[in-house]
Amino acid sequence: MIHSVNYLNRKIEKNIDELAFDQNPNSLFEPIKYILSLGGKRIRPLLTLMSANLFSDNVDIAIKSAIGIEIFHNFTLLHDDLMDKSDLRRGKETVHKKWNSNTAILSGDAMLIEAYKYISDTKLEFLPEVLALFNKTAMEVCKGQQFDMNFEKRNDVTVEEYIEMIRLKTAVLLACSLKMGALLSDASHEDATQLYDFGINIGLAFQLKDDLLDVYGDTEKFGKAIGGDILNNKKTFLLIKAYELSNEQQKNELDRWVYAKQYKDEEKINAVKNIYNELNLKIVSDNLINKYYLSALKSLSRVKVSEERKKELYQLTESLMLREY
Amino acid sequence: MIHSVNYLNRKIEKNIDELAFDQNPNSLFEPIKYILSLGGKRIRPLLTLMSANLFSDNVDIAIKSAIGIEIFHNFTLLHDDLMDKSDLRRGKETVHKKWNSNTAILSGDAMLIEAYKYISDTKLEFLPEVLALFNKTAMEVCKGQQFDMNFEKRNDVTVEEYIEMIRLKTAVLLACSLKMGALLSDASHEDATQLYDFGINIGLAFQLKDDLLDVYGDTEKFGKAIGGDILNNKKTFLLIKAYELSNEQQKNELDRWVYAKQYKDEEKINAVKNIYNELNLKIVSDNLINKYYLSALKSLSRVKVSEERKKELYQLTESLMLREY
Repeated sequence: MIHSVNYLNRKIEKNIDELAFDQNPNSLFEPIKYILSLGGKRIRPLLTLMSANLFSDNVDIAIKSAIGIEIFHNFTLLHDDLMDKSDLRRGKETVHKKWNSNTAILSGDAMLIEAYKYISDTKLEFLPEVLALFNKTAMEVCKGQQFDMNFEKRNDVTVEEYIEMIRLKTAVLLACSLKMGALLSDASHEDATQLYDFGINIGLAFQLKDDLLDVYGDTEKFGKAIGGDILNNKKTFLLIKAYELSNEQQKNELDRWVYAKQYKDEEKINAVKNIYNELNLKIVSDNLINKYYLSALKSLSRVKVSEERKKELYQLTESLMLREY
Repeated sequence: MIHSVNYLNRKIEKNIDELAFDQNPNSLFEPIKYILSLGGKRIRPLLTLMSANLFSDNVDIAIKSAIGIEIFHNFTLLHDDLMDKSDLRRGKETVHKKWNSNTAILSGDAMLIEAYKYISDTKLEFLPEVLALFNKTAMEVCKGQQFDMNFEKRNDVTVEEYIEMIRLKTAVLLACSLKMGALLSDASHEDATQLYDFGINIGLAFQLKDDLLDVYGDTEKFGKAIGGDILNNKKTFLLIKAYELSNEQQKNELDRWVYAKQYKDEEKINAVKNIYNELNLKIVSDNLINKYYLSALKSLSRVKVSEERKKELYQLTESLMLREY
């Protein structure tokens, strides 16, 4: 039986609601409950359950791991927000703002341990592979965050380096989520690997799409303010590619805005966006996104279950890809 | 064959020296190599190997877990130093001083993941129990650190609460180290539990001894300045017990020093130490330490292997207990 996304989402929310944390010390566990209650799309546990559902009617075999991955993801958000000094997460105060830095550090650590507890809660036969996958992925996510922070101080980041960074920081956890569901439903290694590759490619496509929406998105539809990356000089694909393709004059203009100390936000956003437009970067970016999207679809098509069973996964991917400008 | 502490220590150092971390991003892994190179007594991995050696001549079965526990311990030092704003660790700059806060956060996270990698590297039959023990212990250590931080802001901490805090922050990891060695050498559950209890009790005794040495120790022999806990108003057993036992006049005198904004370090140390002396706290404390030490010895005596095999463990415990004033 193929479960609907709605059904799986309700199962995930129910399991997150019912997470039993100790009461004492409350100061350690309250921030964990808080960040997990902020919601989000729960895309990672959803992918784990959908992947398990490709091979098994019973998705409960994967629910603990799915929740473990969501706890891990929220741990990375908690520590990343602290490192990035972000005040808001999903429209609410971040943990280090609402409490303090030490709380964010220690509650984050506790979440990482809690994630391992859930990931470890699986049938013995699957445990070594599940753990190896999760260990590798968790370390890669740390590496991705480190590269991201290193890039802030560099002016010579290449497109290749950027893609590798988003692969580590974003794509591998989606890939891990999918592969985890496959492993836990005893899928073949070939199928598990195809799903992993599917995850990597949708991860790259989603992140590039996010970068694009940050510049070209509709504020209301995208759900956050436009131009944040430009204002922060964030070395996204767009900025890196802009430097790569620009002529002398465009390069000087870019430099002027990147190094400007005083400016009106809107002016800077429009000026940089103008250069992006001159260089056709929306099209260049869309082409790359489509390349990864097609690779993803190819990997999914190779998974040896009926197309009927893959329907929900195709639909979810498409809906995420078609987020509007 | 019973291995000497020297032999086991060399094995541990060799394994730590040979830890293979990625080169890239170096900024993530350099701080990990740095903190692990600062040394320390390596007491936890030593206990794991000595415990394994009680039941098995081959201690290599426990070396990965032993190293995993040492990595975990150094992860807690790294994050604790950041939270406590400590500038020095073993006479060298702490990671957040030598690099920065973000480096300390992220390299610490990577160490926790690396610790799990080593802990997971064990025979399948032992894996669930080893992981359950480690997950539980790691979370308890976080709770202990949270209680320790909470206590800084409280003036009504009881002796009972303090003992529970040091049990979580310090004792459970020693207990886990010992039990891990027993589990990995296929000891009986009774023996593993006795070794766990042995670890809890030596952990409590060691920490209380540390508190005592901070006030009554010989600077040279103890290896660090005397009176630090008094200057920081740290709620150790001594300070908590002093408030519990003191009369009105002594209590006022204690308050005066605890809340004093300006003072000469030596004067404050001597004044508080005087009250401790009046209340016989060195003896009260020594009695409690001996109570835990005797409980520890009782647990070790119940482990069903020959006394000959326990010799090294008895000796190590004694040498740690007899650290001089």
